Amino acid sequence: MSDPLAALLRTYTPLADLDPRETVGFDGDKAAGEQALAAVGAELSELQERLHADGVSGGRRSVLVVLQGMDTSGKGGTIRGVAGMVDPLGVRIAAFGRPTPEELEHDFLWRIGRRMPAPGQLVFFDRSHYEDVLAARVRGLADDEEIDRRYDAINDFERAYVEGGGVIVKCLLHIDRDVQADRLRARLDDPTKHWKFDPSDLDDRELWPQYLDAYETVLERCSTDVAPWFVVPSGRKWYRNWAVASLLLEHLRTLDLGWPEATFDVEAARERLDRT
Amino acid sequence: MSDPLAALLRTYTPLADLDPRETVGFDGDKAAGEQALAAVGAELSELQERLHADGVSGGRRSVLVVLQGMDTSGKGGTIRGVAGMVDPLGVRIAAFGRPTPEELEHDFLWRIGRRMPAPGQLVFFDRSHYEDVLAARVRGLADDEEIDRRYDAINDFERAYVEGGGVIVKCLLHIDRDVQADRLRARLDDPTKHWKFDPSDLDDRELWPQYLDAYETVLERCSTDVAPWFVVPSGRKWYRNWAVASLLLEHLRTLDLGWPEATFDVEAARERLDRT
Repeated sequence: MSDPLAALLRTYTPLADLDPRETVGFDGDKAAGEQALAAVGAELSELQERLHADGVSGGRRSVLVVLQGMDTSGKGGTIRGVAGMVDPLGVRIAAFGRPTPEELEHDFLWRIGRRMPAPGQLVFFDRSHYEDVLAARVRGLADDEEIDRRYDAINDFERAYVEGGGVIVKCLLHIDRDVQADRLRARLDDPTKHWKFDPSDLDDRELWPQYLDAYETVLERCSTDVAPWFVVPSGRKWYRNWAVASLLLEHLRTLDLGWPEATFDVEAARERLDRT
Repeated sequence: MSDPLAALLRTYTPLADLDPRETVGFDGDKAAGEQALAAVGAELSELQERLHADGVSGGRRSVLVVLQGMDTSGKGGTIRGVAGMVDPLGVRIAAFGRPTPEELEHDFLWRIGRRMPAPGQLVFFDRSHYEDVLAARVRGLADDEEIDRRYDAINDFERAYVEGGGVIVKCLLHIDRDVQADRLRARLDDPTKHWKFDPSDLDDRELWPQYLDAYETVLERCSTDVAPWFVVPSGRKWYRNWAVASLLLEHLRTLDLGWPEATFDVEAARERLDRT
């Protein structure tokens, strides 16, 4: 990495014009990308341990990675590839499916708040509160006024989290219709993947232009200074994993975490250990 | 693996006579052990995905790995080494520390029940309900009658989980006082590890014989046909990880999970995909 990837992936291009097979900020092929990912993983793993140590020692820092994208964009694969590189004890995954009846009785942020990171945690959201201005808008699950209210509510919610010591890394995994068609076809062709296929995915596919519009609005209204959106071209899985891991790493570095000081008398502990 | 490891690690020897550096069921050195672990990991990863697929498709199977052991026995390291080999999306870690005031208002199994595996999940317990007959007994946090009641309550609780489709793998990570002394000293000698050290660990260390007694009682009273205990010599980290991974694998194999059948018309989906 020469330029921080965060700066490169914030550059704005309309989604419809973005080639999902680009490899912004990475100069190399798949093999080089996988090697680069391993190097990122080693540093990620150490910084995540420092974050965890900080939390155990009374620190307030935590990190939330939000993954959004159309079906087959690779939210699950990214979690496997990135979260899988760090200590599972310090990581939590929260997947948000269709809201339950209990969740629907509350404001849309209720179920999100309950699954935000605790101090020291690194949490990955597989879908998120953004479904409430994406699917909810496209499928008409809430009226225009309510959808409109939610953008600001999201911004306020995210700002409060950041002011409390949190860091948010929001990644839109960008694919196009062709990439999705290839991946859905691959699922249909492989009987061991049929369980991943839901015919309702095709309903969403038919609403592609409406989803693009909804994503554009999200990028415009919810890319704030404290929690910007990053658009990650996700037509190549190795690049997608490297890019998300690198964005996360850049954010973890800004925390500048050391190792917590001992809160006990080390010499006394050593002497007591020798006696027991 | 020739003999199933599960059979070997159920063989009963008093804990005080058990060498924690044994490598029961494994004939080879550390390098061979790490290689064997990678092979186990590949199969584990596939079977865990089948478990997850089964859960998504309405199946009721799930797996719980319970890890108990004295401080520094490597509960966290085992989770890193074993849980880290499978898809983080299908795995959850639950660590049980000192009960909160809210938890203390309920029966000891209340907080456990809330964190049991959902269908399709693989869950690792870093400490567990057994703390309520180990630490609770040794430190006198409950009276004898209450402790006595808990063994049967645990057996009933575990049996109900198994009858509902669950599988339990209970591993006692066995070390001795010398191994613990070496590991605690290593933590004290390394400033980046001080945050892991809690002087109260030395209180427990002074109660070692009482803990041994409490563990022996657990092995005697809570090793049931549906949920036996396995004693894993944990003086060598590579063996410990291989052994726990292998025990888990042997249990996953017994589930004999295939891939779920498609619940939709594959050909119709393919045609619809071609049109969109």
